[in-house]
Amino acid sequence: QWMMLDWKPKRPDMLTDPFGLGSIVQNGMVFRQNFSIRSYEIGADRTASVETLMNHLQETALNHVKNAGLLGDGFGSTPEMCKKKLIWVVTKMQVMVDRYPTWGDVVQVDTWVAPSGKNGMRRDWLLRDYNTGEILTRATSCWVMMNKKTRKLSKLPDEVRAEIGNYFVDTPPIVDEDSRRLPKLTDSNADYIRTGLTPRWSDLDINQHVNNVKYVGWILESAPLPVVESHELASMTLEYRRECTRDSVLDSLTSVIGNGLGDLATFGQVECQHLLRLKDGAEIVKGRTEWRPKRSYRIGSFGQLPAEST
Amino acid sequence: QWMMLDWKPKRPDMLTDPFGLGSIVQNGMVFRQNFSIRSYEIGADRTASVETLMNHLQETALNHVKNAGLLGDGFGSTPEMCKKKLIWVVTKMQVMVDRYPTWGDVVQVDTWVAPSGKNGMRRDWLLRDYNTGEILTRATSCWVMMNKKTRKLSKLPDEVRAEIGNYFVDTPPIVDEDSRRLPKLTDSNADYIRTGLTPRWSDLDINQHVNNVKYVGWILESAPLPVVESHELASMTLEYRRECTRDSVLDSLTSVIGNGLGDLATFGQVECQHLLRLKDGAEIVKGRTEWRPKRSYRIGSFGQLPAEST
Repeated sequence: QWMMLDWKPKRPDMLTDPFGLGSIVQNGMVFRQNFSIRSYEIGADRTASVETLMNHLQETALNHVKNAGLLGDGFGSTPEMCKKKLIWVVTKMQVMVDRYPTWGDVVQVDTWVAPSGKNGMRRDWLLRDYNTGEILTRATSCWVMMNKKTRKLSKLPDEVRAEIGNYFVDTPPIVDEDSRRLPKLTDSNADYIRTGLTPRWSDLDINQHVNNVKYVGWILESAPLPVVESHELASMTLEYRRECTRDSVLDSLTSVIGNGLGDLATFGQVECQHLLRLKDGAEIVKGRTEWRPKRSYRIGSFGQLPAEST
Repeated sequence: QWMMLDWKPKRPDMLTDPFGLGSIVQNGMVFRQNFSIRSYEIGADRTASVETLMNHLQETALNHVKNAGLLGDGFGSTPEMCKKKLIWVVTKMQVMVDRYPTWGDVVQVDTWVAPSGKNGMRRDWLLRDYNTGEILTRATSCWVMMNKKTRKLSKLPDEVRAEIGNYFVDTPPIVDEDSRRLPKLTDSNADYIRTGLTPRWSDLDINQHVNNVKYVGWILESAPLPVVESHELASMTLEYRRECTRDSVLDSLTSVIGNGLGDLATFGQVECQHLLRLKDGAEIVKGRTEWRPKRSYRIGSFGQLPAEST
């Protein structure tokens, strides 16, 4: 894929972007922004969390729209979308992480958009280590428009297509679509259930709405701790089904596929399925995660690290 | 205070720091780093949250140590501290916010250290709008050393003083010390209690330990929603009493001082007292917050904003 051929170390254009706000490159088709990973973006294993990476995806998507001069009043909506009271909603997100960056690493994020079906938009991301060019993460997502008032999905209006169509690239998704059906998780077939999850005030975004990145934290809340401790998330597919608001109370369900936790002893891959649902059973997010053993993991040593105040 | 006189717009040194990793200025006594506020660092009112500001405080403190060549193996510990298995623990934090920045704003953070008593260190921060020089936030904090194994406080060893003493400045705290005693909050005198708060996996830092910034979120969990919605945090004093670990279950208690919520109708200042405690009553953090009406707030309009998916 042509996006992958363009990496050059320490490009001089960096010096014209002292605050790392990003710029449009590749004949206007790709938006590029660099992030230095900050101390508070890393977790217990000293690496950036998947939520951090997804935050960077969100930030570059918004800055892409802003840089193109298409940021209307809303949170990523174009001027024509604002006129028609339309907002973007994400329906699917796939993330494949090859390596998680650590504190002080500089990550170069490229993002671009493409059509998806008749009324949707695809957005892809490619994350590299800025200094070595190593690919760290690839991600692809699907978006449709929703009417802010009726909360119904909308066709892509011609006026909006005229705004964004020029930015559409004609390339296949950077991650092959995971079209395996996600089976229905219930109380009876889930291995782990965490109930009563509620948004914190700080989980709400501009729209008094729970941001899609926050769901990832809730999904991981029901992932079995032995897996979270010994493995790292290698890939994730999320299907967003329904909105969640400030008053929602959610259950997080996880089932471990195949041999399940027996695999842990041999440090194998683990695959999980996930569901976030409301009390009344309505599905908010369905997902699949794949985990691989952490490079640094040694049995027994992890739990013995002394705790520190910071 | 002399730190305040040094602001110049668009200093050329910015161009030598394309990733915003910061540098030491003012004859080596002050560390300076710029942050552009990102979309995921703002909350429901489009401004950076106090947690975001505190994350930037933490990041600059660590980068100050790193830039001085004093970062040992630990999270802010110097080489001599590492040898002696000492870590920094924060005992007090005072933050005064004049204005919260919003998405895309660039914030210039200056930080420096000073002695505090015989065995402690003070660290101050001054946050400005990079483009206008306007002071956004001032903060001061006290730190002491703790032995990682015994969890007991330690004197400041001469070897560590030799490492850091050259960086000590001789200025009064940037925020006058709030030495009013924080009264004891209990089930019977608290106005709001939120029980059963537990760390999420993603709340843990490198040390498998809950980071001090996370406590702020828990404290705000018991702040009354009418205040959080209509007011913004103007200042905060936190006293850290005890460590909290992954398995801790906390209660968050808040009492509103004085006329209390009756004031809300007239958009006055509100003062609250806070306590985070373990189930057994042990105090983790005590705090005081002061709130002022949001500039943008209009009665009735806030709850009617439509929710959006992002």
